[in-house]
Amino acid sequence: MIDVVTLGEAMIRLSPPDFKRLEQADHFHAFVGGGELNVAVALSRLGLGSRWVSKLPENPLGKMIRNKAREQGVDTDYILWEDKGRAGIYFMEYGASPRPSVVLYDRAGSSASQMKKGEFQWEKIFRGARWFHVSGITAALSKSCAELTLEALKMARGCGLITSYDLNYRSKLWSEDTAQKTQEPLMEYVDVLISTEEDTQRVFKIKGGGTKVDKENYRIVAKKLMDRFHFKIVCITLRENMTVWKNNWNALVYDGKRYYTDKQYRIEIVDRIGGGDSFSAGFIYGYLSTDGDIQYAVKFGNALAALAHSIPGDFNLSTKEDVERLLKGEGLRIKR
Amino acid sequence: MIDVVTLGEAMIRLSPPDFKRLEQADHFHAFVGGGELNVAVALSRLGLGSRWVSKLPENPLGKMIRNKAREQGVDTDYILWEDKGRAGIYFMEYGASPRPSVVLYDRAGSSASQMKKGEFQWEKIFRGARWFHVSGITAALSKSCAELTLEALKMARGCGLITSYDLNYRSKLWSEDTAQKTQEPLMEYVDVLISTEEDTQRVFKIKGGGTKVDKENYRIVAKKLMDRFHFKIVCITLRENMTVWKNNWNALVYDGKRYYTDKQYRIEIVDRIGGGDSFSAGFIYGYLSTDGDIQYAVKFGNALAALAHSIPGDFNLSTKEDVERLLKGEGLRIKR
Amino acid sequence: MIDVVTLGEAMIRLSPPDFKRLEQADHFHAFVGGGELNVAVALSRLGLGSRWVSKLPENPLGKMIRNKAREQGVDTDYILWEDKGRAGIYFMEYGASPRPSVVLYDRAGSSASQMKKGEFQWEKIFRGARWFHVSGITAALSKSCAELTLEALKMARGCGLITSYDLNYRSKLWSEDTAQKTQEPLMEYVDVLISTEEDTQRVFKIKGGGTKVDKENYRIVAKKLMDRFHFKIVCITLRENMTVWKNNWNALVYDGKRYYTDKQYRIEIVDRIGGGDSFSAGFIYGYLSTDGDIQYAVKFGNALAALAHSIPGDFNLSTKEDVERLLKGEGLRIKR
Amino acid sequence: MIDVVTLGEAMIRLSPPDFKRLEQADHFHAFVGGGELNVAVALSRLGLGSRWVSKLPENPLGKMIRNKAREQGVDTDYILWEDKGRAGIYFMEYGASPRPSVVLYDRAGSSASQMKKGEFQWEKIFRGARWFHVSGITAALSKSCAELTLEALKMARGCGLITSYDLNYRSKLWSEDTAQKTQEPLMEYVDVLISTEEDTQRVFKIKGGGTKVDKENYRIVAKKLMDRFHFKIVCITLRENMTVWKNNWNALVYDGKRYYTDKQYRIEIVDRIGGGDSFSAGFIYGYLSTDGDIQYAVKFGNALAALAHSIPGDFNLSTKEDVERLLKGEGLRIKR
Amino acid sequence: MIDVVTLGEAMIRLSPPDFKRLEQADHFHAFVGGGELNVAVALSRLGLGSRWVSKLPENPLGKMIRNKAREQGVDTDYILWEDKGRAGIYFMEYGASPRPSVVLYDRAGSSASQMKKGEFQWEKIFRGARWFHVSGITAALSKSCAELTLEALKMARGCGLITSYDLNYRSKLWSEDTAQKTQEPLMEYVDVLISTEEDTQRVFKIKGGGTKVDKENYRIVAKKLMDRFHFKIVCITLRENMTVWKNNWNALVYDGKRYYTDKQYRIEIVDRIGGGDSFSAGFIYGYLSTDGDIQYAVKFGNALAALAHSIPGDFNLSTKEDVERLLKGEGLRIKR
Amino acid sequence: MIDVVTLGEAMIRLSPPDFKRLEQADHFHAFVGGGELNVAVALSRLGLGSRWVSKLPENPLGKMIRNKAREQGVDTDYILWEDKGRAGIYFMEYGASPRPSVVLYDRAGSSASQMKKGEFQWEKIFRGARWFHVSGITAALSKSCAELTLEALKMARGCGLITSYDLNYRSKLWSEDTAQKTQEPLMEYVDVLISTEEDTQRVFKIKGGGTKVDKENYRIVAKKLMDRFHFKIVCITLRENMTVWKNNWNALVYDGKRYYTDKQYRIEIVDRIGGGDSFSAGFIYGYLSTDGDIQYAVKFGNALAALAHSIPGDFNLSTKEDVERLLKGEGLRIKR
Repeated sequence: MIDVVTLGEAMIRLSPPDFKRLEQADHFHAFVGGGELNVAVALSRLGLGSRWVSKLPENPLGKMIRNKAREQGVDTDYILWEDKGRAGIYFMEYGASPRPSVVLYDRAGSSASQMKKGEFQWEKIFRGARWFHVSGITAALSKSCAELTLEALKMARGCGLITSYDLNYRSKLWSEDTAQKTQEPLMEYVDVLISTEEDTQRVFKIKGGGTKVDKENYRIVAKKLMDRFHFKIVCITLRENMTVWKNNWNALVYDGKRYYTDKQYRIEIVDRIGGGDSFSAGFIYGYLSTDGDIQYAVKFGNALAALAHSIPGDFNLSTKEDVERLLKGEGLRIKR
Repeated sequence: MIDVVTLGEAMIRLSPPDFKRLEQADHFHAFVGGGELNVAVALSRLGLGSRWVSKLPENPLGKMIRNKAREQGVDTDYILWEDKGRAGIYFMEYGASPRPSVVLYDRAGSSASQMKKGEFQWEKIFRGARWFHVSGITAALSKSCAELTLEALKMARGCGLITSYDLNYRSKLWSEDTAQKTQEPLMEYVDVLISTEEDTQRVFKIKGGGTKVDKENYRIVAKKLMDRFHFKIVCITLRENMTVWKNNWNALVYDGKRYYTDKQYRIEIVDRIGGGDSFSAGFIYGYLSTDGDIQYAVKFGNALAALAHSIPGDFNLSTKEDVERLLKGEGLRIKR
Repeated sequence: MIDVVTLGEAMIRLSPPDFKRLEQADHFHAFVGGGELNVAVALSRLGLGSRWVSKLPENPLGKMIRNKAREQGVDTDYILWEDKGRAGIYFMEYGASPRPSVVLYDRAGSSASQMKKGEFQWEKIFRGARWFHVSGITAALSKSCAELTLEALKMARGCGLITSYDLNYRSKLWSEDTAQKTQEPLMEYVDVLISTEEDTQRVFKIKGGGTKVDKENYRIVAKKLMDRFHFKIVCITLRENMTVWKNNWNALVYDGKRYYTDKQYRIEIVDRIGGGDSFSAGFIYGYLSTDGDIQYAVKFGNALAALAHSIPGDFNLSTKEDVERLLKGEGLRIKR
Repeated sequence: MIDVVTLGEAMIRLSPPDFKRLEQADHFHAFVGGGELNVAVALSRLGLGSRWVSKLPENPLGKMIRNKAREQGVDTDYILWEDKGRAGIYFMEYGASPRPSVVLYDRAGSSASQMKKGEFQWEKIFRGARWFHVSGITAALSKSCAELTLEALKMARGCGLITSYDLNYRSKLWSEDTAQKTQEPLMEYVDVLISTEEDTQRVFKIKGGGTKVDKENYRIVAKKLMDRFHFKIVCITLRENMTVWKNNWNALVYDGKRYYTDKQYRIEIVDRIGGGDSFSAGFIYGYLSTDGDIQYAVKFGNALAALAHSIPGDFNLSTKEDVERLLKGEGLRIKR
Repeated sequence: MIDVVTLGEAMIRLSPPDFKRLEQADHFHAFVGGGELNVAVALSRLGLGSRWVSKLPENPLGKMIRNKAREQGVDTDYILWEDKGRAGIYFMEYGASPRPSVVLYDRAGSSASQMKKGEFQWEKIFRGARWFHVSGITAALSKSCAELTLEALKMARGCGLITSYDLNYRSKLWSEDTAQKTQEPLMEYVDVLISTEEDTQRVFKIKGGGTKVDKENYRIVAKKLMDRFHFKIVCITLRENMTVWKNNWNALVYDGKRYYTDKQYRIEIVDRIGGGDSFSAGFIYGYLSTDGDIQYAVKFGNALAALAHSIPGDFNLSTKEDVERLLKGEGLRIKR
Repeated sequence: MIDVVTLGEAMIRLSPPDFKRLEQADHFHAFVGGGELNVAVALSRLGLGSRWVSKLPENPLGKMIRNKAREQGVDTDYILWEDKGRAGIYFMEYGASPRPSVVLYDRAGSSASQMKKGEFQWEKIFRGARWFHVSGITAALSKSCAELTLEALKMARGCGLITSYDLNYRSKLWSEDTAQKTQEPLMEYVDVLISTEEDTQRVFKIKGGGTKVDKENYRIVAKKLMDRFHFKIVCITLRENMTVWKNNWNALVYDGKRYYTDKQYRIEIVDRIGGGDSFSAGFIYGYLSTDGDIQYAVKFGNALAALAHSIPGDFNLSTKEDVERLLKGEGLRIKR
C-alpha cells in the first residue's frame, strides 16, 4: 500500500574518507542519495508505504541505486530503465572550519535528466496514494524534467493527492532567473512549500525585513510566500552553521493562520546531506499519521531532520522509536 | 606478584566505524573489554600486579579475550575454560547529538554467566594480593554469578584484602528491584563503594536533596550511602554530557570524615566506554601506591578516567607518565 | 508474484579480512547469509518472484538481515519478528592450503531456532507459488524447527508446489544419527533431493561402490537414493578441493530414467559459501523457466554455482546475463 | 629534456576492493590511468624524458590526473585545461574464473574527448623529442579526436620523430567498421605498429592461417600487417588467460626481415590493466637506449609488460633495475 | 622558473588511524612532510615556482618523498641521493583533550642529517629565484647541517634573495642552549624571522612583559627580536589550544615601523601539522605577489595557515581560490 | 615454567596492503616479528614455556613489541630496556611472479643491535630451561651481538641446555666472509643446526654434489655439515618457489646415523615470513614433547612450517590441534 510518491534523481555519492580533499583521494566511500529518494526512504522506515519514481541506466550502478531504495522498503516498480544511460555521480569533499564542504557534480547527461512527460503511468503510480513530493532539483535537471514536474504535480492534484515541493535551489544546476521562471508556474499545483530563507530570496526574490538571526524574519518570509502563491502550508527550515561540524537546526511552519514553532536542536554533524529532506519526510509523516496535526508534524519533522545529521549517508536510517525518544527528551547518555 | 584481583566477564565489542548505525554496518571493529578486566588492565599498565578471574569458552574468541588481557600484562592463570561455551558479544552503535550511543548486548548464555561458586580456588587466587575489585555487572549476569560474587567478597575479606565494588547498574541485564535485592546483602563485604548518583538512586533509592547540577547533591548521596552501609570509602563519579562527544568528568570521595574533591576535566571523547573503570583503577592505584592517601587517589583516579576517554577501545592504555603529566598541568600542545 | 518460497535461518557472517585467524582479528567484514535465503536471493536476481520465510529478532541485526533480503528483491512480508530474540552469528576463518577454512557458529538460541509449527500462515505464504525449498539445516536447528519443516513440506505438497530439499549436513549442529532419524520421515514429501556424496553417506549411510574420484560412483549414489526414497529427481553436486582456493565443481542429476551431466568448472574461489545453494537456485530456475527441461536445469545450476564462488558474501549476485555468457562459452578476457 | 611524447585520455579508475561486484560496492579504490599516459609514466621511470599531452577539466579530478602524472616525473606542461569539462571515469569489476573482469566506462563527454586539431602547439611539444606514441583509443574517443590523431602523427613525422601506434581496439567505444575506416588512413604515418592477433582481425580483418595456440599464426599476422601497411616494425603481444588471475605473456616482433622472439612469462596477476602499454614503453625504451637493437627492445618490452601485471594500478611502477634483474633471471626468492 | 628555494629534511609520517595510541597500532597512514618541503609545496600550489633542496636515500622511501614533492609541482632536480642512507620517519600519535598529541621521531642518521656544506651547487640552485626559506629544524639535524644552513643563508643573501627563517624549536632534537648558540650567528643573514612567543623565549630568552593571553605581549616580543637582531620583518604566529581539536589561530607582523594584524580564525582541526609552514608560505606568496604588501601578506599567510589545519597530511593542498574565498568571507555553508 | 629460551631482535614490520610497492604506499600494516621471537611464540602456543631475551627501547614501539610477545604467552621478564634507543623496522614489499618480494631493512642502530655480553643474567634466564635457540641474524646485528651470541651459547651449554642454531644468512646484514668467520667458532656450542642448502653454501662453502632438484643433494649437504662441525642433529629445510605465492616445502634431518624425511607440503602462501622459524619451533616441540623422537620432530616441524605460510604476520598462530589435524591428513574441506 503506497501512501506517498516521490519523483526525482538519485545519484552515487563518492566521498573520500578522513577529510581528504578530492584532489588527494585514493579511495571513495559510496552512498546512494537524492532529495526525493531520501524522502521516500525516511517515510518507508517510519512505516508508511512509499514509492520512488525515476529513470535509471540498466547497468550495475543503476541497479545499485534501485537496490538501495529497495533495501529500505521503498517501492521501485515504476522506475524506468534506460539501456545506454548513465547514473549521476556526485563527489563530496568534506571541509572543516574555516573551509566549507564542497559538492562536485558529475551528473550531466544522467538517465534521470532524460525523463520526460508522457513516459510515466501516473494513474497507476498514484493509485491509493495520499501525498506527492518533489523538489526543485528535479525541475532543474533539464527542460524535459521541468515539464515532467509540472505534469506530475497536475496529475497528483487531479488524483486527489496533497502535493509538497522543496524549493532546494542548486546554483550549479541553473541560474536564479531560470529557476524563478521555471518554478513559478509550478507553484499553482503545490499545497505545501518547503524552503529556506536563502533559497526563497534567490528564487523568488522574497526577503524578510529583519536581520538574519532574527526569528521574526522567517515569519515574514513565510507570510510573503503564502501571500504570493496561496499555498496551504509554508515550511521554512533554519540552519545555523556554528562551525562546519556543529550546526543549529530549527523549523517554522505557517498555515495562513498561525505559526508553528519548535525547539532548536544543537547538532554534532556526522553527515549533513539530506537534513532538509528529512524535515520534509518527518513533516509528511507527522501530518499523515495524525490527519493533519501541523504542530506534531513540525515537531516530528524538526526532530527527524536533527537526527538525519547523525547518520552517515544520504538516507536517514532513523526509526520511529528514535524520533519518539528524542521528542520525549531522553538525554545523551549511552543506552545500555 | 599479584596486588589486585578482579572478577567478571569480558566480551568482544563489535562496533561499526564511521558512525554507521548497526543496521547499516558492513564491517565492525573488534575490541575486548569488560568492567573488571578493564580495571585489571589499567592497574597492570600502572605497574601493579593484577589478576583477572573469569570463565571463557575454549575457542578462538575466548582465546582472543585471554590474549588481549595477557598483552597488557594481566595474569590470566586462573581463568576457567569451558568446552562448549560462548563468548559474550556486545554491539556498540556510536551516536552524535542529539542521538545517544547505544549498546546492544548479545551476551546471554556466555561462559562467564555460567560461573558459579565453588569453582574458583580463591585461596590461591588471593595469595599475596591486597585488593579485590568486582562490579554489579558480575552479580547481574546470572543467579549463580550473584552467589559467586558473594563468595568472592567474603573470601577476599577473609584473606585480608580490601574490597571495592562498582555499582554499575545495567538496565538491560536486570530490573532495579532485583538489583537491589541481590546487591544489598553484598554491601556488608564491601570496603569501597564506587557509584554514580543515578545508579545509587536506581538501585538503593538514595537521592540527594538538591538539583542535579548542584554539587552539594553528590555529597548528600555519598553521606547517605555511608550511613546506610557503613563503607570505609564512598566514591561518586560525575559525568556531564554536554554533547555526545564532549563530556565533563569529575569525582568526589567521602570517607566518613571528609569529602575529597578534584578539578573537573573537559573531555573530547574518543571512546567513553570504561571511563568509570578507569576511575576505579586509578583510585586503587593511588591508594595502594601511597598507603592510603585518599586525596591522591581521587586525583589519580579522576585523571586516569579523563584520559580513558581519549583512547579507543575498552582498555585504558595510559601510562603512569601520562597521568603524571596531566596532574602536573602540562597543556594541550603537541609534544615534539 | 511469488514463484518460489524458501524457509530457514539467515545469520550475520563475521569474517576477518586478510586471512587473519579469528584469534587475531581486529575487525570483521559482515555479510548476511543462510542456505534458504541464498536460494531466494539468487532466484529473485534471475527474475523469479521469491519469498523467504523465517523468524528474526526485532533489533538492528534482525533488520539488517531483512533489509539485505529486500535489497535483492526477496519478499519478506511473512517473516515473524521476536521481541527479545537474537540473530544467529557465524564467524568465518579463511584458511589457505594446507589449512582449511573453519566456521565457528554462534547461533544457539537464535530467533530462527525458535520457529515452530502452527506459527506460519502457509496457505497465504504459498498462494500462487510453484516451488518450495528447504534444507537440512532448518531441521537441524531445533526440535521445533524439525517439526516445522515437516509441516511446511506437507503444506507445500498440499498446495501443489514442487518441493526440494538440500540435505546439507552440519556436524556442528547435530549427530549423524539424529540427522538420519529426523530427516528420513521428511523425505516422503520431497520431490527433488539435492545432496553431495559425502552427506548422503553420513546421513543415509548410502555409499557408491567405486572410488571417490570415480564418476560412476556418483551415479550409484543417486540411484540408491532414488531407490530408497522414490524422489522425482536427485541432484548430486561434486566439489574437488584442489587447494583451499582452487576447486573443481560439477553436478549430476538423475530422474529415475537417465543421468544428466555437464562440464566441470575450474574455479578461482573468492568466497565459496553458498555454492550448493546456487546450484539449487539455478536448478530451480532452469526447471521452472523451461517447464521442466532437466538438462537445461543442470547446466544452469552448475554454471550458477560456479559463478557463486567468484562473488564475495553468501549471496550470489550473478545475473541471468552472467550465466548465459558462461553457458555460451565466452572466455576469461576482460570485457571492455 | 623530452625523449618521448604521447597523446591520449587518462581517466579515474574506480574499482571496488575484495572482488566485490560493482552493484554491491560500498567503496572504491581510485587510480589514474590511460594507455598513452601509462606509456609516458613507464618511460619516465626508466629514465627517459616523457611528455603527456591531453585535455583535462579544471577541477579537482582533472588536477588529480595531472598530479599523478607529475608524481612519476612526466612532463605535463602542454595539457590543455577546460573550464567546464569532466574527467572520464571507468569502473573496474574484478572477476575470478569462470567470471571475467569487466570495465564499465563512464567517459562520454570527457574533456579529452573534446580535443581537436589546431589546439596543440605541436612544434613546441615535439621539440627535441625522438618518438611519438598514440593508441587507437584516442582516435576512438570522438571524430575530432580522430582528426587530431592524424594531425599529431603527421606533425610527428614532419618533426622527424619515430611514431608508434597501439591498435588497442575497444568495442565499447566504436564498431569494428568505424575503427577500420578511421584508422586505415592513419597507418601511413606509423612506423611501429603494436597489436594483438585478435585486434588485428577485428580492425583490419587480418587473420593468421593456423590455430590460435600455434605460434606460427602470429608470424603470419605480423607479416600480413607489414605487407599491407609497410610499417617499419610490427609488434604482436600474446596473452593466454589460463585463469582470470594467471596469464601467460609473450611478444613477437617483425621488422620485415626477421622475427624477434622472447621467452614466455608466467604471471601471477595483481592488476592486468596496462600490460600492453608496458610492452610499448619497454619496446620504446629498449629501442631508444640502444639505437635500435630490436632484440633487446623485445626482451625489455616483454619483461616490462610481465612486471606490469604485478603492480596495482594502471601505472607500471617498475624501475630499470627491476627489469634488469628479471632479464638476468634472478629467481622468485624473497630479497633480503 | 623558480621563485622560492627551501632547504631541509622531509620524512615519512606514520600515524595510526582512529586515534589509536602508537602502542596499540596495527596499521599506519603514511604521509610525507617536513617544514621546508611543506612551504615549497604550498607555494607551488599557489602558482609560484618552488624548489626543494635536500638529501634522500636511493631507496623506495626516498623516492616516495621525491615523488610526493613532484606530485605537487615542486622542483626536485637538486636533491642529492645517498646510496646507503635512510629516510627519516616520525610517528604521530593523535591525542584528544586532556591528552595532547605526541610525535615520536625516528630520524637519527637520516640522509638529510648527513647533508654538509660544499655539497650543493648554490649558484645554480638560486639562479633566478627571489626568496630562500629555511627553518631551525635543519640546523638542529646535525652539526654539518647547521654549517650548511649558514652557508645557504650566506649564499642566498649573496645571490640577492630575500631570506626567511622559521625558528621552529624542537626540544627532542637539541637543547635550548645549543639551539641558541647555533642559531644566533645565523640571524645576521635572515631578513624575515618567523616564530612563536614560546620558541622565542626558549631559544633567545626573549619574553613579552604581559600575560599570555595579552596581545600586547606579542608586540613586545616582536619588537625585542627586531631590536636585538635587526631583521627586516618579524612574524609571530599565535595558536590557542582551546582543546586538542579546536584551536584559535592568528598572526602578527612587525616591520620595525608598524604592526600588521589580522582576524583570529577559529579552527576545527583535521591535521595541525604544518600550520606554521603554511603561514610562512602564505606570507611569502602574499609578499612576492604584491611586491611587498605586508598587510596582504599577513592576511594571506594567516588564512593559508588556518586552511592548513583542515587538510590531512603535512602538505597544505589549498588553492589560491580557497584562500581568496576565505579572505572574502564566504561562509561555512556547503558549496553546491 | 620455562622450557625454551631464545635470544634475538624483534622488529616492527611495515607492509603496504594490496600488493602496493613501497614507493606508492599510503598506508602500512604493522606486525611484530623476528626469528627468535617467532620461535618463542610458536612454542608458547604449543604449550611449552618460552622466554624471549632481547633489548628494546623504552618507547611505544618497544612496548608494542613486548606486548605482542606477551599476548602470545611468551615470558618477557628478562628483556633489557634502553632509554634512548630505537626499534628496528623492516618494510616488506610483496611481489607476484615474476617479481619477487623484497625486504627493506631500517634496523641500523636498533636497541637490539646494542646488546652486548655481560648484560644478561644467563643463570637466572636459563634456570629450569631445557633448550636454547638463536639464529645467525643475532650474530649479524653487530660485533657486540656476535660476542653475546657466543656467550649465550656457552652459558646454555654450561647450564645443560640443548642448543639450536638457525644459520639464516642475511646478505643485507653482512658479507658471506664475515658470516663465515664469525659463525664458525660458534658451531662448537651448537647441538642442532638448522639451515638451507643455499645458506650452507654461502656461509660454509658446503655444497651437495647433485643438481638442485635432486633430493640426494640435501643429504650430502647435511652429511658434510655433520662431518665438519660434529653437530648432534642437522636439519635442512627445502623451499621450492613454484611462484611467488605457491611454494612447496619440505625438510630433512640427519643425526649422523640416519636421515629422517617427511612428505612435501604444497602451500598457498598468505605470508611466508617465519616459515623457517616455525620449522625450528616445531622441531623443538616435537623433540622435547617426546624425549627425542626425531622422526616425530621432523613431521611436527615440517607441518608447523607449512601452516606458518597460511597465517598473516611473522608469528605462527597455529595451535597443537591445527598441527595434529594436518598430521592426521584431514583434508581441505571447510570445517563446519
